[in-house]
Amino acid sequence: MDFSSFLTSLGTSFVIFVVLMLIFTWLSRKPGNHVVYYPNRIIRGMEPYEGIRLTRNPFTWIKEAFSSTEADVIRHSGVDAAVYFVYLSTALGILVLSGVILLPVLLPVAYTEKTISANETAIEGSFNELDKLSMAHIAQRSHRLWAFVAATYWVSFVTYYLLWRAYRHVSGMRAEALMSSEVKNEQFAVLVRDIPPLQNSQTRNEQVDSYFKAIYPDTYYKSMVITDNKVPNKIFAELEGYRKKLARSEAIYAGSKGTTSPEGSRPTTKTGFMGLVGNKVDAIEYYNEKIRELVPKLQSEQKIAMKDKQQSAAVIFFNNRVSAASAAQCLHDTMVDKWTAMEAPEARQLLWDYLSKNFYERLIRQYLVYFIVFLTIFFYMIPIGLISALTTLDNLKKLLPFLKPVLDQATVRTILGAYLPQLALIIFLALLPSFLLFLSKAEGIPSLSHAERAASGKYFYFSVLNVFIGVTVGHTLFDSLKTIQDDPNSIFDVLAASLPGSATFFLTFVALKFFVGYGLELSRIIPLIIYHLKKKYLCKTEDEVKEAWAPGDLKYGTRFPYDMLILTIVLCYSVIAPIILIFGVLYFGLGWLILRNQVILLILPPANASRFGHIYLHVYLTPNPAFASGFHQQVLKVYVPAYETYGRMWPHMYTRIAASLLLYQATMIGYFSAKEFIYSPVLIPLPILTLLFIYLCTMKYYRFFQVTALDVACRELKDIPNLEGVLRSYLARSLSAEKGTDDVQFVNDLVHVSRPGSVV
Amino acid sequence: MDFSSFLTSLGTSFVIFVVLMLIFTWLSRKPGNHVVYYPNRIIRGMEPYEGIRLTRNPFTWIKEAFSSTEADVIRHSGVDAAVYFVYLSTALGILVLSGVILLPVLLPVAYTEKTISANETAIEGSFNELDKLSMAHIAQRSHRLWAFVAATYWVSFVTYYLLWRAYRHVSGMRAEALMSSEVKNEQFAVLVRDIPPLQNSQTRNEQVDSYFKAIYPDTYYKSMVITDNKVPNKIFAELEGYRKKLARSEAIYAGSKGTTSPEGSRPTTKTGFMGLVGNKVDAIEYYNEKIRELVPKLQSEQKIAMKDKQQSAAVIFFNNRVSAASAAQCLHDTMVDKWTAMEAPEARQLLWDYLSKNFYERLIRQYLVYFIVFLTIFFYMIPIGLISALTTLDNLKKLLPFLKPVLDQATVRTILGAYLPQLALIIFLALLPSFLLFLSKAEGIPSLSHAERAASGKYFYFSVLNVFIGVTVGHTLFDSLKTIQDDPNSIFDVLAASLPGSATFFLTFVALKFFVGYGLELSRIIPLIIYHLKKKYLCKTEDEVKEAWAPGDLKYGTRFPYDMLILTIVLCYSVIAPIILIFGVLYFGLGWLILRNQVILLILPPANASRFGHIYLHVYLTPNPAFASGFHQQVLKVYVPAYETYGRMWPHMYTRIAASLLLYQATMIGYFSAKEFIYSPVLIPLPILTLLFIYLCTMKYYRFFQVTALDVACRELKDIPNLEGVLRSYLARSLSAEKGTDDVQFVNDLVHVSRPGSVV
Repeated sequence: MDFSSFLTSLGTSFVIFVVLMLIFTWLSRKPGNHVVYYPNRIIRGMEPYEGIRLTRNPFTWIKEAFSSTEADVIRHSGVDAAVYFVYLSTALGILVLSGVILLPVLLPVAYTEKTISANETAIEGSFNELDKLSMAHIAQRSHRLWAFVAATYWVSFVTYYLLWRAYRHVSGMRAEALMSSEVKNEQFAVLVRDIPPLQNSQTRNEQVDSYFKAIYPDTYYKSMVITDNKVPNKIFAELEGYRKKLARSEAIYAGSKGTTSPEGSRPTTKTGFMGLVGNKVDAIEYYNEKIRELVPKLQSEQKIAMKDKQQSAAVIFFNNRVSAASAAQCLHDTMVDKWTAMEAPEARQLLWDYLSKNFYERLIRQYLVYFIVFLTIFFYMIPIGLISALTTLDNLKKLLPFLKPVLDQATVRTILGAYLPQLALIIFLALLPSFLLFLSKAEGIPSLSHAERAASGKYFYFSVLNVFIGVTVGHTLFDSLKTIQDDPNSIFDVLAASLPGSATFFLTFVALKFFVGYGLELSRIIPLIIYHLKKKYLCKTEDEVKEAWAPGDLKYGTRFPYDMLILTIVLCYSVIAPIILIFGVLYFGLGWLILRNQVILLILPPANASRFGHIYLHVYLTPNPAFASGFHQQVLKVYVPAYETYGRMWPHMYTRIAASLLLYQATMIGYFSAKEFIYSPVLIPLPILTLLFIYLCTMKYYRFFQVTALDVACRELKDIPNLEGVLRSYLARSLSAEKGTDDVQFVNDLVHVSRPGSVV
Repeated sequence: MDFSSFLTSLGTSFVIFVVLMLIFTWLSRKPGNHVVYYPNRIIRGMEPYEGIRLTRNPFTWIKEAFSSTEADVIRHSGVDAAVYFVYLSTALGILVLSGVILLPVLLPVAYTEKTISANETAIEGSFNELDKLSMAHIAQRSHRLWAFVAATYWVSFVTYYLLWRAYRHVSGMRAEALMSSEVKNEQFAVLVRDIPPLQNSQTRNEQVDSYFKAIYPDTYYKSMVITDNKVPNKIFAELEGYRKKLARSEAIYAGSKGTTSPEGSRPTTKTGFMGLVGNKVDAIEYYNEKIRELVPKLQSEQKIAMKDKQQSAAVIFFNNRVSAASAAQCLHDTMVDKWTAMEAPEARQLLWDYLSKNFYERLIRQYLVYFIVFLTIFFYMIPIGLISALTTLDNLKKLLPFLKPVLDQATVRTILGAYLPQLALIIFLALLPSFLLFLSKAEGIPSLSHAERAASGKYFYFSVLNVFIGVTVGHTLFDSLKTIQDDPNSIFDVLAASLPGSATFFLTFVALKFFVGYGLELSRIIPLIIYHLKKKYLCKTEDEVKEAWAPGDLKYGTRFPYDMLILTIVLCYSVIAPIILIFGVLYFGLGWLILRNQVILLILPPANASRFGHIYLHVYLTPNPAFASGFHQQVLKVYVPAYETYGRMWPHMYTRIAASLLLYQATMIGYFSAKEFIYSPVLIPLPILTLLFIYLCTMKYYRFFQVTALDVACRELKDIPNLEGVLRSYLARSLSAEKGTDDVQFVNDLVHVSRPGSVV
């Protein structure tokens, strides 16, 4: 790629970005789109413009994003979102601090290099303006390389310093959040798995209760045994489905009433598969009947599940936080594979399906999944290649003969012939995150957040290995595979030799990513289109419309690996082609700003405080002390967190940044060797330092991200916790639904205190 | 070594053994030696022959050893001794079960092999009768090698099975012991280190108390801050020294009275260095005066130490075992390097000196020690070589001129000239265990038992690497070092090629070890000689005599690595030269028997039960329930345990047996390759299986050896623990001595409850 085409590509990306920004400014003012741009405000019952008097200015959102503080983020989006911003600002910090030194020093050093030795003239021919600013322009063995050695050290030390600070900062943030004086249900609960088989005529609850009562006579409260809810779940889902359909039919009926005929036409449905086949019946009556049938069925299945389908796992509850935090860390049985305890995840993110899998099954599942992921990362091209080969046009015609007339058209033939091979790959890449999440869940991980972290890790390795190393080395690697087998060290030589050539490609890649990617993110064009399509053709009831615009959470499971890929690329090229730092800074700077807008909060003037106070009260049951001060209020704009892990994602972010740093240092050592720089061993201490740094950081900080420190858990609570409520919050929805008013009896059923003497 | 010289060597060893056995039978009956053979019985105030009516028969001890059960061992020598017997019987079991199959199968297979291929005739010349029974006699690529492959698998599976069983058994034993209803002080204590610096005007005790009171409001009792006791320790040692000298002088004085002059001659001493220079004074008066001087000095130093020399570590006490066990496992501060808690070791084995070293210093010390040990293991020959080179006769004469007349004698010259080079090596090997123990203590390990375990591990690596691999490969390795550098896999080829040659050497080695080593052990010739020499020339008082025969503990720190060396050798040769299994079985069988005699207990007839009951009561403060049943009693014969760790040594034993197994499997793969057996890859799964086995075992069982499972700690106690006594038991002797009767005030001083409002 020469310089002019690079500029063209850059310019195009920028134009797309500007256009998207203008679209955002224009679309976000149209009232019909407010649900897409301000879903959180609407969830909380506010009008989208309230308090945003200055929104006429299209750049107000930038001001808003900057004026929000970390405390605001934590208060309204949780620690996890704040940790994500720490990640973004750490990455930004690393690149800015690196750039401040590297750009003014290395660019002149590279550009003024004149002495290209004779044997490089062939390569020189391909040099363009951009390459003159990179390390590739420096002659072999030149003494100017010392400047690049110093730069390599500088980038490393900047990274160490900022990572260490960030780890300490996040650790403090986590401690602060866990110390909160508000009652958080999960802080009183411990998940116990691998409960040994029942002996005698005990029930599971009796077994669990007597075991823990003996160990914690004063602090143990009650247990809730995990049950196999497959049947009630299915009935509950059916029931909910019929309810939705009923509401929809009623809405259609009501709609038909108003216009032509005053009685309206009652909608009909068919009783067979998906309402497509079978007898035609009156829809409203049919659904009502179905619901009447299913409710008692669900109730009886609930009883069966709670009584007969108890499994070898339980959530146990303590009457204070220290005991729960302590129990989650302790060895209870002499065997590690029995009565394993861990901190209970929040009820909303508990993954019920695999909780009762035993210790060894979980272990085997884990390694099996690792193996599948390994195969996926390294050999994903093989099945895709096979599928592409099989789905040629002729095969398609044979398999799907009704497509024949279409496929015989010349233009369709040409287009499909060109794109069909890529189609499998595109579908694979689109499905990959879900596939990885599915695999992570199948490992037997008990919480959604943990599974997402695990999937995100797998995705990171996939993207770094395939995009970064794949593109850089490309076919060179396969050609030189024999060399590498003979001498494993030569992998760095191969990598280094092909690095400068890919620099421009990655410059463009990063630019495209941030201009187009973040442009789409801010303008929310795709959700907007989807929303409008759904609204027009599918949604009939108010609930369905709400569902159509309902915002998700930040989804850092897929977002973070992308960011990491960019950071890895920028780090690895930071010294080789320092110009990439500018794009890296723009990526993370813009990312921070736009996400702050999406996740974060508008600062409302105090005048509105009283008005929104009570709305806020509805949302959060316990009023936030910040409101009492009455100074300002914040409301989420777009994303709603799906769970809270108090920053458990951070150690993963940390390790991956450190892994990128290692890759960068290895690349540099290889590249310096390729430059025949005889002092290149001077870089050998760097990877050792990095490993030492990872070891020290992880040792000092990591444990607190696995468990809750007792010093943190022992802080006082504002209210006495309602333990009954805590326990009930852990019930599966399919078990607690349709219970009516008989709640107390129900919870008693749940913990089986039928023989008061034996338990408690 | 040919067959006849092997038989000679074997015969000699056996004769020595028989002679030592006879000496034992003869000497152990002489009343003057009873203190050496039955020290424990004498410590407990019994006469050595009581209850041993059948001792006239010289082999009674064998019957006694066999009739003792594991419960007896645990009751009287502790779990650690029992674990050592589990180790011995596991090793024995592995060798017996291997031998039962290998000897009848492999020996005929090897012996009947006729087809030695042409290119091996040169080697065949050196074959002797013994070699015909080994794998070396099998031709290259012979199909008979399949029998040896099967044997390799058999030995491995036998080892897996017995190790797994032993681990489960030891784990149960540990649980049983920890569940004991007797109050054991260390089960109520937790060692806390890395206490952050003091803030405000708090004292250390206030800081520790307020911190833990907040976390454990109901179960926390009190704390004892670790102090720097260097000064009081020194004064206390001086004081004890003078007390001993005083007693000695009084004994001399009393002795002189009886015989010639009725008043006796008062002994004198000199006031200078070691009583050798200075003014001559009356010894008794001088020592009395010194003691009078030192007591107040000690008391004031005790106060200073407790008040001003408090350090950043403390032992904290809980009022129940579960809380202590739980606190030792939990993360207290958000940073791992602050307020680190662990189970407190027993007071008697607490290593005070390094307790206050901070987290990172301990870490650095640890790695530094590992590095020194690495150097010691691999390069110990270098300094020894240097020393030998420097300490030639001529150099000696220059350095120590007064030796000149001796060194000039011809015979002395010859002998010294021959042995001087070896002298440094012998001294080094003799001092090595102490040196390794010193290094392990310097790591900052808090308990003596842990330091001994660490030293024992280091010694194991030293002996396996130097004796086994060193002897086997010998100079071959150094000659072929270049080959190995080019291809690391060839190390196995080198090892394998030199294996058969060393087989006979190791056969002799094992035989010598068990005949002479255990002969010496049983006859206790060396302690006997030392005792008699001391008694005759040094000991004047009753206390000094007691000190001279005071038995040590089992010292598994040095004993175990030797056993492991034998086991490693026997395992590695088990398939190559199966005959070695016989010697291995004899070694471990005899070892089990003789140690059972030394460690273990005589079963006394019930008639004596009442008589010894009260003596026993003096020794153990809480009477053992076994006595109540009155059926039998046991008394230790020789060794007194120095500490109790409830089997913490086992995981180390386990790992090392597994490491030996790995070495064995690697050796076999190498040796089969050297035999050009094309199916040798069939053995590749074995090391993988072993690693998997180690991983699974360690995961399942190991954690319980690091901490106490709560299920075990929650068992009920017989008595309400005397917490004051528990606390006081952790006082350093130099701090608690000379306190007189004012004990309550003293303990109050200790825990600084001077401001009752602020604490408790």
